[in-house]
Amino acid sequence: MKAAIVGATGYGGAELIRILQQHPEVTLQSYHSSSYKGDSMADRYPHFQAVSEENLEGIDPEQIARDADVVFMATPSGVSSELVPAFIKEGARVIDLSGDFRLKDTRQYEQWYKKKAPAGTVLESAVYGLTEWLETDVTETQLVSNPGCYPTAALLGLAPLVKNQIIDPHSIIIDAKTGVSGAGKNPTSVTHFTEMSDNLKVYKVLEHQHTPEIEQVLAGWNSNTGPVTFGTHLVPMIRGIMTTIYADAPEGITAAKLSDLYKESYKDSYFVRVRDQGTYPGTKEVYGSNFCDVSLALDERTNRIMIVSVIDNLVKGASGQAVQNMNRMFGIDEKAGLAFAPVYP
Amino acid sequence: MKAAIVGATGYGGAELIRILQQHPEVTLQSYHSSSYKGDSMADRYPHFQAVSEENLEGIDPEQIARDADVVFMATPSGVSSELVPAFIKEGARVIDLSGDFRLKDTRQYEQWYKKKAPAGTVLESAVYGLTEWLETDVTETQLVSNPGCYPTAALLGLAPLVKNQIIDPHSIIIDAKTGVSGAGKNPTSVTHFTEMSDNLKVYKVLEHQHTPEIEQVLAGWNSNTGPVTFGTHLVPMIRGIMTTIYADAPEGITAAKLSDLYKESYKDSYFVRVRDQGTYPGTKEVYGSNFCDVSLALDERTNRIMIVSVIDNLVKGASGQAVQNMNRMFGIDEKAGLAFAPVYP
Amino acid sequence: MKAAIVGATGYGGAELIRILQQHPEVTLQSYHSSSYKGDSMADRYPHFQAVSEENLEGIDPEQIARDADVVFMATPSGVSSELVPAFIKEGARVIDLSGDFRLKDTRQYEQWYKKKAPAGTVLESAVYGLTEWLETDVTETQLVSNPGCYPTAALLGLAPLVKNQIIDPHSIIIDAKTGVSGAGKNPTSVTHFTEMSDNLKVYKVLEHQHTPEIEQVLAGWNSNTGPVTFGTHLVPMIRGIMTTIYADAPEGITAAKLSDLYKESYKDSYFVRVRDQGTYPGTKEVYGSNFCDVSLALDERTNRIMIVSVIDNLVKGASGQAVQNMNRMFGIDEKAGLAFAPVYP
Amino acid sequence: MKAAIVGATGYGGAELIRILQQHPEVTLQSYHSSSYKGDSMADRYPHFQAVSEENLEGIDPEQIARDADVVFMATPSGVSSELVPAFIKEGARVIDLSGDFRLKDTRQYEQWYKKKAPAGTVLESAVYGLTEWLETDVTETQLVSNPGCYPTAALLGLAPLVKNQIIDPHSIIIDAKTGVSGAGKNPTSVTHFTEMSDNLKVYKVLEHQHTPEIEQVLAGWNSNTGPVTFGTHLVPMIRGIMTTIYADAPEGITAAKLSDLYKESYKDSYFVRVRDQGTYPGTKEVYGSNFCDVSLALDERTNRIMIVSVIDNLVKGASGQAVQNMNRMFGIDEKAGLAFAPVYP
Repeated sequence: MKAAIVGATGYGGAELIRILQQHPEVTLQSYHSSSYKGDSMADRYPHFQAVSEENLEGIDPEQIARDADVVFMATPSGVSSELVPAFIKEGARVIDLSGDFRLKDTRQYEQWYKKKAPAGTVLESAVYGLTEWLETDVTETQLVSNPGCYPTAALLGLAPLVKNQIIDPHSIIIDAKTGVSGAGKNPTSVTHFTEMSDNLKVYKVLEHQHTPEIEQVLAGWNSNTGPVTFGTHLVPMIRGIMTTIYADAPEGITAAKLSDLYKESYKDSYFVRVRDQGTYPGTKEVYGSNFCDVSLALDERTNRIMIVSVIDNLVKGASGQAVQNMNRMFGIDEKAGLAFAPVYP
Repeated sequence: MKAAIVGATGYGGAELIRILQQHPEVTLQSYHSSSYKGDSMADRYPHFQAVSEENLEGIDPEQIARDADVVFMATPSGVSSELVPAFIKEGARVIDLSGDFRLKDTRQYEQWYKKKAPAGTVLESAVYGLTEWLETDVTETQLVSNPGCYPTAALLGLAPLVKNQIIDPHSIIIDAKTGVSGAGKNPTSVTHFTEMSDNLKVYKVLEHQHTPEIEQVLAGWNSNTGPVTFGTHLVPMIRGIMTTIYADAPEGITAAKLSDLYKESYKDSYFVRVRDQGTYPGTKEVYGSNFCDVSLALDERTNRIMIVSVIDNLVKGASGQAVQNMNRMFGIDEKAGLAFAPVYP
Repeated sequence: MKAAIVGATGYGGAELIRILQQHPEVTLQSYHSSSYKGDSMADRYPHFQAVSEENLEGIDPEQIARDADVVFMATPSGVSSELVPAFIKEGARVIDLSGDFRLKDTRQYEQWYKKKAPAGTVLESAVYGLTEWLETDVTETQLVSNPGCYPTAALLGLAPLVKNQIIDPHSIIIDAKTGVSGAGKNPTSVTHFTEMSDNLKVYKVLEHQHTPEIEQVLAGWNSNTGPVTFGTHLVPMIRGIMTTIYADAPEGITAAKLSDLYKESYKDSYFVRVRDQGTYPGTKEVYGSNFCDVSLALDERTNRIMIVSVIDNLVKGASGQAVQNMNRMFGIDEKAGLAFAPVYP
Repeated sequence: MKAAIVGATGYGGAELIRILQQHPEVTLQSYHSSSYKGDSMADRYPHFQAVSEENLEGIDPEQIARDADVVFMATPSGVSSELVPAFIKEGARVIDLSGDFRLKDTRQYEQWYKKKAPAGTVLESAVYGLTEWLETDVTETQLVSNPGCYPTAALLGLAPLVKNQIIDPHSIIIDAKTGVSGAGKNPTSVTHFTEMSDNLKVYKVLEHQHTPEIEQVLAGWNSNTGPVTFGTHLVPMIRGIMTTIYADAPEGITAAKLSDLYKESYKDSYFVRVRDQGTYPGTKEVYGSNFCDVSLALDERTNRIMIVSVIDNLVKGASGQAVQNMNRMFGIDEKAGLAFAPVYP
């Protein structure tokens, strides 16, 4: 397969290159950027010297669609909604890493993203790519909308309980923590080293745009879902997301039953590792890898379930899952090119 | 006043020295350690060279009580319960930084601390020293039990809502995050730099010994209190605690009313800074200082209140609050020796 | 004394406020900023809430000189050279933290700073304020030029050897490492958390503007001084500078003689702590304090001396030394307001 | 090829597994540990769950030699010297990551390592495995001694200048900085997170056991080599080594000539990336990869050359280079299994 990456100079694009340059079935065909056309990737990222020195090209959907079998859109929200329809029209198969094609309700999109929603028909055709819980066979799908980093961690943590109607979705509280790479490559005062190091911050309090994405998926799994409380924090680390999720436990549940349910739910999912009862993951245990590690605890004193899930936000939370979706779209082993171990320590 | 520090070589003891050596009303009389008797503080902590080079002495309660006006016990849990009664008997005025005299219910202590509880009469006499919400005048008190770091942050965040019966305590979920200095000075595999840096961990899941301390205080404020859910995380930073607290909002509450309530509740408390509506603190904004910063948000979508409170775990969460309590015990300005600004950045 | 701070919103200005708000002899009279006039310091730095909430004023040299006894210029290089002459003309006593009045040779300034040098007469009148080695009594001095952070660490490390003509200055190689706060408050791609964390960078290779400052002072101490090699590195930490200095050892020197020389040289200097032979400082041992810790080693195998000196770049390397200079200018104890201990850990 | 790893539970062993589990020509045959026999790798390192769950076996050289084509000794210094001879006797091909077989002069070994040197014949047979500068064809070699992390960075940086007799080796000063993973997996007070974070330390001052290793190799390249000055620092980062090297420049050299020399010297070395003149690497640009990036500067003011080289201490500085040596020993492409990109950011 020949792959093109549009928006290659952000962290998502760079991580796609890191992964795909080792993928046994993929040739990196071309990189595209509107801002840095003509530069090489090694100009933008010296660590790519010798690995990937191709020059960045401009964005010509017709030509890209003709030359590549799959197009990754690593473009920001608001840009994908502009570009993707042209690629779709040219017949390209597209995986979009932005938030633009995730929310089916365009009012929700406009309310949370403060941007104009994408056109209806393309949006309707997009399949939400939470790979372990895909709603449809994607081998013929033209557009996969790759999930957000937080939703990936939260939804993989919640799926067995919500899909099996074990918890009341109204009781869900998600306390989420992310490494700073989630904020992207552009320097800001919030992510300045001296301000962020040895610091823990809350941000976008109750206003994070991933909230409706989580709610939309939960509602698809349990129509009784209402709004969820979603708190977001910036942790002084580069990569990693942890979601700590609290929900009311039903009568009669036990920690052992919960553990069994999760082990069973994910027994065929290589990338979701349900940890043994009583053990809990740190984010570094998935660092640089496509794994999502999940643990559960039952607080018998308060009758609440606590779920802990961790991912690398740039891999399973973005580019790794995008490649996993590509593997599914092209009918190859979902592990292809993704079976590398976490980098530890 | 002449102060003695027992257990001077841990982080709590060292922080007491840092604070007290600048206190206008205090002379540091003596340091005591059972393990490092004869060493100087500068042997244990080279940063104290020129600042505090006195030799560590052994622990002789009779002599210490005779020579000092106030004794700080910076000893670990299990050690204070052994030592404090001797100091009390000798007539010393004591501030104990350990967890030994916080829980009035000795079964609770033994269940959560896995240690033998201290003797009844001394325990009964101990006043819990959450300075802003002291239950009694402490100018005659002989023993103040200094609060834990997490309870300080959580309780200062919850007090106005619980004391005024605005929220149902059963709905409280506390998601707490601490810097690594909370784990103390002894190296462990969990706190090894390579394991902890760029990592976020959950630990002591639903088993943290500060849980019953929080519940005991809340129950004193609202007899309807039951168990609370308390999740604890280790963040790759040296100092700082953030508690993110979720609770059901009552009918008719507004963000403005909440903000007014907190501003009013803490208007005479120099060390609790209620942040303006819509602004939220990072832990670094209290780094090295005795401040606790508190913010609130009302999630109208889910009808929940979210409270964010931050402290420096070694200052307001330990040694700073101990000095604040000393100031109260001796009838001097609670700010004396504590009005230093946070170290930022 | 009443102090005014011009350029209060950078890290140097904020650190001056942190220090001076506790200084027993100083009242903070006013803060000045051309960019943020009308804002309060707590708007710019929320950690100053309750500590220092005064509004920033514009810069009117005449009024400032009239109202304040001492003016701290925490303005960037290029700005001080514009502003200081006006303050001098109004009779103000000024401590300038920028690089503008450090180099007596204006061609050197223009070559290394790439800016226009300040006017001659004011420049000539400026006393270089390496406090421990002041060339003149400054009790009548109107303008003190505060040293750069790197020169402070390097020169305090080198002084006893160079002033006593023990080493050949031509053999000096300074390998310097700084925390990221030295790069200031403005976010850049180099100091973006994700780029800087878990990373070690060289920067301004052989082009750092502190090079001629070091050489100028060394030449004053030993006229045989030529250019020195000065390598500069960015370390993923907030505060701290370490200079590791190598120089050829003379015949007959011993480690014990070196140690004695340094102990003797600094026996009256509270803020320079010569470490015992065989022990070496980490930057954290001076964190937040005005200390400079110095160690020496003699490499008998290669006949070279290795000097290690550490400071907090924002304190002894900037605002702390500025206050120390103020104390000297006004004839008070140089420790006044500066005897706080390092923040550790 | 079937590979066995002896001493699999240290960081070197874990990194070998991370690399080899993706190597196209290698099957991981068995892991061995004297301390953790019977545990699985996922017990020791939860991040290996699903990746590598085999149980650790004891150390039986006869059986290991029979079952494996290549044996990696990731054992500590002092242990390898005991074990390797038995493997050699059984006919195994061995790559030893410890320091035990690097120094040909046993007195040097005993002086710097404070341990008994290994037996003579095996020591004599060991080939020093600085892969880019191997002295002999290793396709028949039975024992390769893998270089130390610091020597790898320093020697790759120095080779073109020393081998071509361009600099006087007596003038070499190496100022080296390492991430904390170089200190291994065992927690110590020096590497405790709270002590190491936001801190920069010198350590083993002028006593680092890698000093004679560097000197031995330099002496092989230029018989005029004497002792070199080697300063070592601990930087608050997980992975990465930077060596900043200073040496006197010869008459007539130019920066362009130096650059050409290095580009030419390494034109066939995939893993050594000579950076373009005027650009310098940070350690993160090789993070997690087998690259060594090298830059040069000529200080015309002082007539010194400054070389900057960076590696990941656990990859090119240990396990990656070991695999590169294995590739050479078995006559396959040296890039096999090692062409993964750095993890960035």
